[in-house]
Amino acid sequence: MPVNLTAPAPGSLLPIEGIQLGVAEAGVRKANRKDLLVMTLPEGARVAGVFTQNRFCAAPVTLCREFLAAGVPIRALVVNTGNANAGTGADGMARARHVCEALAGQLGCQPEQVLPFSTGVIMEPLPFERIEAGLPTCIANLSESHWEVAAEAIMTTDIVAKGLSRQLEIDGRTVTVTGIAKGSGMIHPNMATMLGYVATDAAVSQPLLERMLKAIANVSFNRVTVDGDTSTNDSFVLIAAGTSGVSIDSESSAGYEALHAAVREVALFLAQALARDGEGATKFVTIEVSGGRNGEECLKVGKAIAHSPLIKTALFASDPNLGRLLAAIGYAGIADLDVNTVRLWLGPVLVAENGGRHPAYVEAEAAAVMKGSEITIHVDLGRGAAAETVWTCDFSYDYVRINAEYRS
Amino acid sequence: MPVNLTAPAPGSLLPIEGIQLGVAEAGVRKANRKDLLVMTLPEGARVAGVFTQNRFCAAPVTLCREFLAAGVPIRALVVNTGNANAGTGADGMARARHVCEALAGQLGCQPEQVLPFSTGVIMEPLPFERIEAGLPTCIANLSESHWEVAAEAIMTTDIVAKGLSRQLEIDGRTVTVTGIAKGSGMIHPNMATMLGYVATDAAVSQPLLERMLKAIANVSFNRVTVDGDTSTNDSFVLIAAGTSGVSIDSESSAGYEALHAAVREVALFLAQALARDGEGATKFVTIEVSGGRNGEECLKVGKAIAHSPLIKTALFASDPNLGRLLAAIGYAGIADLDVNTVRLWLGPVLVAENGGRHPAYVEAEAAAVMKGSEITIHVDLGRGAAAETVWTCDFSYDYVRINAEYRS
Repeated sequence: MPVNLTAPAPGSLLPIEGIQLGVAEAGVRKANRKDLLVMTLPEGARVAGVFTQNRFCAAPVTLCREFLAAGVPIRALVVNTGNANAGTGADGMARARHVCEALAGQLGCQPEQVLPFSTGVIMEPLPFERIEAGLPTCIANLSESHWEVAAEAIMTTDIVAKGLSRQLEIDGRTVTVTGIAKGSGMIHPNMATMLGYVATDAAVSQPLLERMLKAIANVSFNRVTVDGDTSTNDSFVLIAAGTSGVSIDSESSAGYEALHAAVREVALFLAQALARDGEGATKFVTIEVSGGRNGEECLKVGKAIAHSPLIKTALFASDPNLGRLLAAIGYAGIADLDVNTVRLWLGPVLVAENGGRHPAYVEAEAAAVMKGSEITIHVDLGRGAAAETVWTCDFSYDYVRINAEYRS
Repeated sequence: MPVNLTAPAPGSLLPIEGIQLGVAEAGVRKANRKDLLVMTLPEGARVAGVFTQNRFCAAPVTLCREFLAAGVPIRALVVNTGNANAGTGADGMARARHVCEALAGQLGCQPEQVLPFSTGVIMEPLPFERIEAGLPTCIANLSESHWEVAAEAIMTTDIVAKGLSRQLEIDGRTVTVTGIAKGSGMIHPNMATMLGYVATDAAVSQPLLERMLKAIANVSFNRVTVDGDTSTNDSFVLIAAGTSGVSIDSESSAGYEALHAAVREVALFLAQALARDGEGATKFVTIEVSGGRNGEECLKVGKAIAHSPLIKTALFASDPNLGRLLAAIGYAGIADLDVNTVRLWLGPVLVAENGGRHPAYVEAEAAAVMKGSEITIHVDLGRGAAAETVWTCDFSYDYVRINAEYRS
């Protein structure tokens, strides 16, 4: 079950004026589940996106990059689950284009004004006929108040829908930020099998929107990992609808800091929600690495810990087999690491220093920390001032079951 | 259960004249199991070793490096299981030295002529009193014919003992090569939670012995992975006893090629045995990557596949969810990879080319391959002439169980 995470309560995801959402059960892979989402944007909305680094990126990712680079105003997004349309070659590109054309035809815009997203099984042909057949249902139920149902429609192996809203005041006007995301396996920094959509009704200039997106992705979705696999389809999109009457053009604009903080809070909540709902997760783990010479080496250590199956299975068992943490720090790739300067804490318990176990370490104290559902591991490398944080979950029988049975 | 691997039959591990082995139940961690091995070497024996790259390397690894670098003739090896003596700081170094001193005292040699090895739980103090108390039993049962029992004494979570002998003729004389190894978790290239000892009765010059060791380690133990964790204690030692009357000084000596091939065969068998007996393994997987510009990028792809929990759980389920293979190839880190030149086979079945599934691919054929216990994945990158092979196993419920319960 997800670790201290519940689906957004009805009405808790606040509308973004001008953005409408509609869903359908298109039967992309399975019957009787919502698997298709259309999101329409108001005229003047600005959109920025970051995407997977995987060379086998999905056809819709390639199209998103192409359409965003062209600079044509985006009018709609279309998201299907059940099929990733990745590893599908030229035929996959044609099928993704066909989906954009079909929706554009029904909305009265150009195909390159429609961003497509897919998530699901890799290397199988996208059943675009079923998607096309589902679009009228999506359009018929378009509504500004459908964020919760949209969060459900983009789920794959997720157990709960993920979404959050925040409101702030800028120049006496209310600005809203609402975001939804999906993903619980193949979750890895840069990035995950994840789709994330965060929208605000503020107007934000295109260059600023893109800078905000990259900065916020880097401290949220790019810091969470479930299993170390980088998906073919990861996408994180930031939308500025511009319908609130508040306009932010640069970092010096009034309200910029507050808006950035609100978007960051929503993105960080969604990113952590991916690990909380990680496949088979029973614990949510925060890995703080400080005292590095630079952020890169802190991230190396954080990811080595976050990716270690040995550590993740020990976390699942609530077994303070903490030598495995030292081993991961040691193989993280810092060639000149002096192990005598490294200190390791589990929660508040100082576990190791001077190359070995702390003399006052008592296993019962560490065992008590391990029993919790929220665990913080802190490594101080003792060689600099840089720090980074990575989030992950444990590794349980259910991870194996879910992934062994994924397609059945 | 181990995949197509059985313990060496009684008498199948051939003696190496002058090398004697004795074991004891020292109760290092658990009672009633062989957990201590002493191996004595004849005068004139030469020894070379390669060790873990982990910065938190174990105290015995540090001592082995120190003693081998000093160039003093090695007269004995001592191996304990149950405790890794890693992450133990200065105290761990003192305890490892104490073990060497104790054995040296009983054998009548210097402490630096004794190489110590430990494997087991990390970050707990080595109970050297128990080890010291067990040494007389080891010495009392020293015998040239104890290789099988030695292979058992070094096991930790291994299910079966691992060993192989080969004989060859050089200049009309019989030369024997015998090796044993342990390891089944925390197995990773460069290297594994593994200990490997291969001995021959040929005499080999020290520089040649070291070159042979490194070259052979690189194509055997450094090409096998179970879980991607690099242990603190990995050690692979090659011993030339020099008792057969055959002497090999350089690569141009008569018999060098044959001896190299025999040592390599033994080392490769042992390395593959680690994956066959990988924790929870139900399948043995060979990953061949060809068509790379250099070996390094072939290894990147091979290791990305071998380390992917998503692929390993699909292998466990015999589910040809082969898109996960494309995803791993795509994120392996070849920045300029053109996915259209990549071809992927599962056994004899051509799965993907031109960036997507092969038109003639039939899932039933791949499913039949996946049902086997020996699976070969072949990736042709289509951009050069380099090739590499990596071996691994699948990822089952039992991996989680074994590692969750490891210390209980």
